[in-house]
Amino acid sequence: MSGVSSDQLHKSTLSVYSNLMEHFNPGLQKLVALGNSYIKAFQALGVCSEAYFSAVAKMGDQALHTLSSRSLGDVLIQISETQRRLTAEMEGVFRWFQIEVLQAMEKNIKLDEEYIDGSRRVYELEVRNQAEALEKQLRRGTYRDSLENSEYMLYLRQSHQEILKEEERRYRFLAEKHCGLTQSLLFLINKVFIHTGHPTQ
Amino acid sequence: MSGVSSDQLHKSTLSVYSNLMEHFNPGLQKLVALGNSYIKAFQALGVCSEAYFSAVAKMGDQALHTLSSRSLGDVLIQISETQRRLTAEMEGVFRWFQIEVLQAMEKNIKLDEEYIDGSRRVYELEVRNQAEALEKQLRRGTYRDSLENSEYMLYLRQSHQEILKEEERRYRFLAEKHCGLTQSLLFLINKVFIHTGHPTQ
Repeated sequence: MSGVSSDQLHKSTLSVYSNLMEHFNPGLQKLVALGNSYIKAFQALGVCSEAYFSAVAKMGDQALHTLSSRSLGDVLIQISETQRRLTAEMEGVFRWFQIEVLQAMEKNIKLDEEYIDGSRRVYELEVRNQAEALEKQLRRGTYRDSLENSEYMLYLRQSHQEILKEEERRYRFLAEKHCGLTQSLLFLINKVFIHTGHPTQ
Repeated sequence: MSGVSSDQLHKSTLSVYSNLMEHFNPGLQKLVALGNSYIKAFQALGVCSEAYFSAVAKMGDQALHTLSSRSLGDVLIQISETQRRLTAEMEGVFRWFQIEVLQAMEKNIKLDEEYIDGSRRVYELEVRNQAEALEKQLRRGTYRDSLENSEYMLYLRQSHQEILKEEERRYRFLAEKHCGLTQSLLFLINKVFIHTGHPTQ
């Protein structure tokens, strides 16, 4: 960001702080609340799925005791088992999602609010001190170097880079956690449907 | 079923009728009720999933407007789209399940109760008539053939075969509908995860 004025740098740094505090963390907070509802809805679905496929298995068991439909009884019981296995695996994914994504996000929000708030206060104080020091030097005529290389500008640039890294770290955390969710779904689909020699294949 | 007595045949036929009326059709009725709850639970999950991944997409959109995390914004939006597509496809499967499985089962139950009830009454009446006719012939000494080849035994055997076929047809219907459900899930998984070049692959 060479050629950018100290004011622009300072404003850009502050806007990242504001974004993290006013948008990112509240957004994460909202995700946690929505995610908890999502998990509850999945648990309710799991109960209904279990009731339904347990009734299908019962029909399959009835068929096993007929003269006409024993092999169809086997098919019904196998379908029921596949669906129950799928539900059980999905429960595993949602448990992982609850612990590794939602609880991790919730923990991060609390720690982050304090951290970002403190870091911003330190930054603003340091900027004020450095600006005053530079101004004094300029007034006394004791400053000889170019403003571009001043300690003040170096601090602004470094702080700007650091807060961008912090911001990127937070979005990366969010993206990685949710990639993990999709990967878990893929993994279980492979496990349940592709590698179990399901009767429909 | 050669060598089986007329009584055994008759009892076996009646027990299939009873099984269909007292177990199969009430079982189907229970499946319809449980299936409707299952669909409602899935719809509730769909609403929660949409809310969650719409919030993830919003976070992705925020990231697109940062200096640090534009590509992560893309990733978040893509994950959100994959999940929304999965939910939309699942909604399709559940719609199919509702129309092709639950509604078809419900329609069948009503028609079947009348059909089986009527068919059983016709069978019992005919068995009585034929048994009486055979008894008369035996009393008068006008029956010369073996009992095994009597019209009465032929009717019992034929009726037994027919009711076994009816029973098999019903379990086959149930098994085929539910195989269709598993196949639809497999098909959508292929469509959403395997052939879309998902970012996690």
